[in-house]
Amino acid sequence: MGKNSGVPSPSRRDLLRMIGVTAGSTAMYQAMSSLGFAADSPYRGPIDLQGTPKGASVLILGAGIAGMSAAYELRNAGYQVQVLEYNDRAGGRNWSLRGGDSYTELGGLTQQCRFDKDLYINPGPWRIPYHHRGMLSYCRRLGVPLEPFLQVNYNAYLHSSRAFGGKPQRYREIKADYQGHVAELLSKATRQNALDASVSKEDQERLLESLRNWGALDKTNAYISSNTSSERRGYQKDPGGGLTARPIPSEPIGLTDILESRLWQGISAGDMFDMQTALFQPVGGMGRVGEAFGRELGPLIRYNSKVTDIHQDNQSVSVAYEDTRKPGTKLQARADWCLCTIPLPILAQIPMNVGPALAAAIAAVPYASAVKVGLQFKRRFWEEDEHIFGGITYTDLPIANIGYPNTGFHSGGKGVLLGGYIWGTNAMEFTAMTPDERVRKALDYGSQIHPQYPQEFDNGVAVAWHRSPFTMGCFGMWTSDTRAKHYDDLCEIDGRIVLAGEHASYIGGWQEGAVTSALDAIGRLHQRAIAAGATA
Amino acid sequence: MGKNSGVPSPSRRDLLRMIGVTAGSTAMYQAMSSLGFAADSPYRGPIDLQGTPKGASVLILGAGIAGMSAAYELRNAGYQVQVLEYNDRAGGRNWSLRGGDSYTELGGLTQQCRFDKDLYINPGPWRIPYHHRGMLSYCRRLGVPLEPFLQVNYNAYLHSSRAFGGKPQRYREIKADYQGHVAELLSKATRQNALDASVSKEDQERLLESLRNWGALDKTNAYISSNTSSERRGYQKDPGGGLTARPIPSEPIGLTDILESRLWQGISAGDMFDMQTALFQPVGGMGRVGEAFGRELGPLIRYNSKVTDIHQDNQSVSVAYEDTRKPGTKLQARADWCLCTIPLPILAQIPMNVGPALAAAIAAVPYASAVKVGLQFKRRFWEEDEHIFGGITYTDLPIANIGYPNTGFHSGGKGVLLGGYIWGTNAMEFTAMTPDERVRKALDYGSQIHPQYPQEFDNGVAVAWHRSPFTMGCFGMWTSDTRAKHYDDLCEIDGRIVLAGEHASYIGGWQEGAVTSALDAIGRLHQRAIAAGATA
Repeated sequence: MGKNSGVPSPSRRDLLRMIGVTAGSTAMYQAMSSLGFAADSPYRGPIDLQGTPKGASVLILGAGIAGMSAAYELRNAGYQVQVLEYNDRAGGRNWSLRGGDSYTELGGLTQQCRFDKDLYINPGPWRIPYHHRGMLSYCRRLGVPLEPFLQVNYNAYLHSSRAFGGKPQRYREIKADYQGHVAELLSKATRQNALDASVSKEDQERLLESLRNWGALDKTNAYISSNTSSERRGYQKDPGGGLTARPIPSEPIGLTDILESRLWQGISAGDMFDMQTALFQPVGGMGRVGEAFGRELGPLIRYNSKVTDIHQDNQSVSVAYEDTRKPGTKLQARADWCLCTIPLPILAQIPMNVGPALAAAIAAVPYASAVKVGLQFKRRFWEEDEHIFGGITYTDLPIANIGYPNTGFHSGGKGVLLGGYIWGTNAMEFTAMTPDERVRKALDYGSQIHPQYPQEFDNGVAVAWHRSPFTMGCFGMWTSDTRAKHYDDLCEIDGRIVLAGEHASYIGGWQEGAVTSALDAIGRLHQRAIAAGATA
Repeated sequence: MGKNSGVPSPSRRDLLRMIGVTAGSTAMYQAMSSLGFAADSPYRGPIDLQGTPKGASVLILGAGIAGMSAAYELRNAGYQVQVLEYNDRAGGRNWSLRGGDSYTELGGLTQQCRFDKDLYINPGPWRIPYHHRGMLSYCRRLGVPLEPFLQVNYNAYLHSSRAFGGKPQRYREIKADYQGHVAELLSKATRQNALDASVSKEDQERLLESLRNWGALDKTNAYISSNTSSERRGYQKDPGGGLTARPIPSEPIGLTDILESRLWQGISAGDMFDMQTALFQPVGGMGRVGEAFGRELGPLIRYNSKVTDIHQDNQSVSVAYEDTRKPGTKLQARADWCLCTIPLPILAQIPMNVGPALAAAIAAVPYASAVKVGLQFKRRFWEEDEHIFGGITYTDLPIANIGYPNTGFHSGGKGVLLGGYIWGTNAMEFTAMTPDERVRKALDYGSQIHPQYPQEFDNGVAVAWHRSPFTMGCFGMWTSDTRAKHYDDLCEIDGRIVLAGEHASYIGGWQEGAVTSALDAIGRLHQRAIAAGATA
């Protein structure tokens, strides 16, 4: 295995362990880095498929991110490629709903999106982290311009309906005060010798200095109302210029109030690996990626094609499908190989002759319930009144998130909020409602945080993923148990069929899972095709 | 005094103290908020100057942000306004150096900026925080589009030349590991009853739960190598898709290594009030604001005008100046009132008949030394090789910062880095060098962090603010001592002259200080003008 295989050989591991034991973690870390070890990515740069057998063909089911990244690479490698897509557009969950779009969910209810020009909501994914190198690479190669996505906004809110009289708190206040109290308590414990057993005296001195700085403590190691703490949490009156300039410090919130409110739960979102700065969004909506892929692949994609049967034999794979615009039509596609990216809840309903291991894996993965609500307002009151520019407010209400647009800052005019990103049982309740009811409910809840809602509301849309006819759920949910039993079976090539998609990855719900799973799958398929070509 | 006067009356303060004592800090905070108290801004929205006496005139010295915001408002209020500006452009320190620009510093050395089209460096201010409402309001009113400025980048570096063998560490690793160790230590101390005297048992349980979440601890409250900690600090091998998908956790850095390296100093920058998300930068460079002001004010600004004498009497203010393109010319301007925004090191050298208090204040404020270096490289290797998109790397080397461009992400081609933002004694050393030497030195130091520097370097510029002919320093530095003695004197109207600028504010070095000081000054000047008009 080469340097980039990602799985360390035992001897290298042993070497590192030895270095760690004898030389401490600094040396350990340096050794890891110089061995090409740290920050290894599963994306290896554009895939290099050489030696494609003449005339070899691949049928791809689904023109989402997985299907289209595979189609793009296989086409470039010389395969004959055809993609069947259920929707009348490319992208799958990579999708932006814009003014003029319509969407019909399972059950038959159709929503007409009445957003103004250039305003949109992403019912599916909405951000691309800096380390999702596959997605970023396709954006670059397809010419999709990106702009920053702001995950964390210090002036957005953390909100508990059961604390602070239901009044939302600014993120900066909760974060600064939690850190300040933690620093003060640890400083106190250190000075009372509670750390003597585990931390050297020299390190204790360094720790105290660092806690003062990091926690915004005063000279006595206390977290109190002062310009020092206000330089984190914000002032009662900000500093300014001239004779009315002197700042007035603000009053920190007590530790008990913060702990009881549980608002500390909201301060770490931006520390998570997938939500760390820098994050990106395509200019004009996430759907720009799917649209660009669709243009690139052109006639390779056949839209409005509903797969009804997948059958393989020793020579090829045959897929029966129906044109959704002409119900009852029976059409057929055939190829040497098949890459199937159909989401599992749909795939489980399609007859397909694969072995019991893959069949069991397909049946083993439930899909997450999620609902996203887009609300257009007559003005960007969150910017104008509340000085919130982008980012996310977190609440314990069923809407869970309010996402502010990360574009068009300070532009005035109308704006579209993500009025709810609803999960779990709350999502199931919202899914049971009509789209109009979902919008109304999101408005009701959101009004507790932004009282401007009723006055400024214009129109809205709501996508409940369990009612999506092309996924029947938001993304595959694995447990460590189901992973151990079924994951490899789901990914292994079964005869001439291989699955790909975020459900065949360790980054469920992220587009990078779709990309890396597709590239891994076609890499293996390519080897099979070469082997089969050689023996043919 | 009205609700927005900003200075609380004693009775309101007493009320709040009483609430605080009797009802705890939650009630206190709510009371503060409902009294219109929390997050009071010194910027009150567009200034409303009514009743301008007919024919009243103001001479403004300096077309920087303070001078031009004042000119804009006074012109709109009906004053006759003239602005004298030393440079041949508007903006002052609000300034972007672009390809084709030239800049001559004190001592006579001229730099030709050879950056490519659309690339620039901001020698002065480079970011506008969300709460700098005055600056944001002018950007909006002048039609200057803004884009996000990324202060924090989890994949940028923290670097100490004396730790980790000089190898830069990723921000995410130091931040996650510092938090993890702090959480583990406080958790341990709590469970060993070290907090019993100050924290209730119930709060201790809540604290332990919060520390596990916030610190990414495992079930035993330890911070160890695991997927949980890697979800903060990054993985050894990131999760991906397909059969090579399984993530490999990374190894945290030990507490001793982090404390000794002092890299913890770099993790709080984005928590500071002026550097919290959301921050903005004008599209195309900070100088776009000054340029827009310049266009707006048009012929009201007389460029290339070097003030040589300021004289007031009971009727008016007379200013002698020279056209810098025709040395020796003696020109004169006169008005009823004078708003002087000339930086203090320059102003201190200009004869001006003001009282001893203002004269002493002008002499009391030294200016910070700072040097900014802009480096153009043949490719954006920080993005392509190191996956750093925007934000700042911090180092203990004299260059102190490397700032990555927050625009043109993923665009390929050339790019300009802020190759150093140098302070204090290091800045003095850099100021003593020729511009070429500064650039070379910044390259040398930066190569320790980015080894691509020598290979990829294209060209550079370096602005040493103590050699700036229009400021002779970066910004005014106040101590609590000099503030107590001189600040009010600096801001008070002296006869018919009043000073404004960031030096006359509590937010030194920030453009918002210039704006709020200018608005405060002209508000008071306006009252004087009305009073004088009434008695005339």
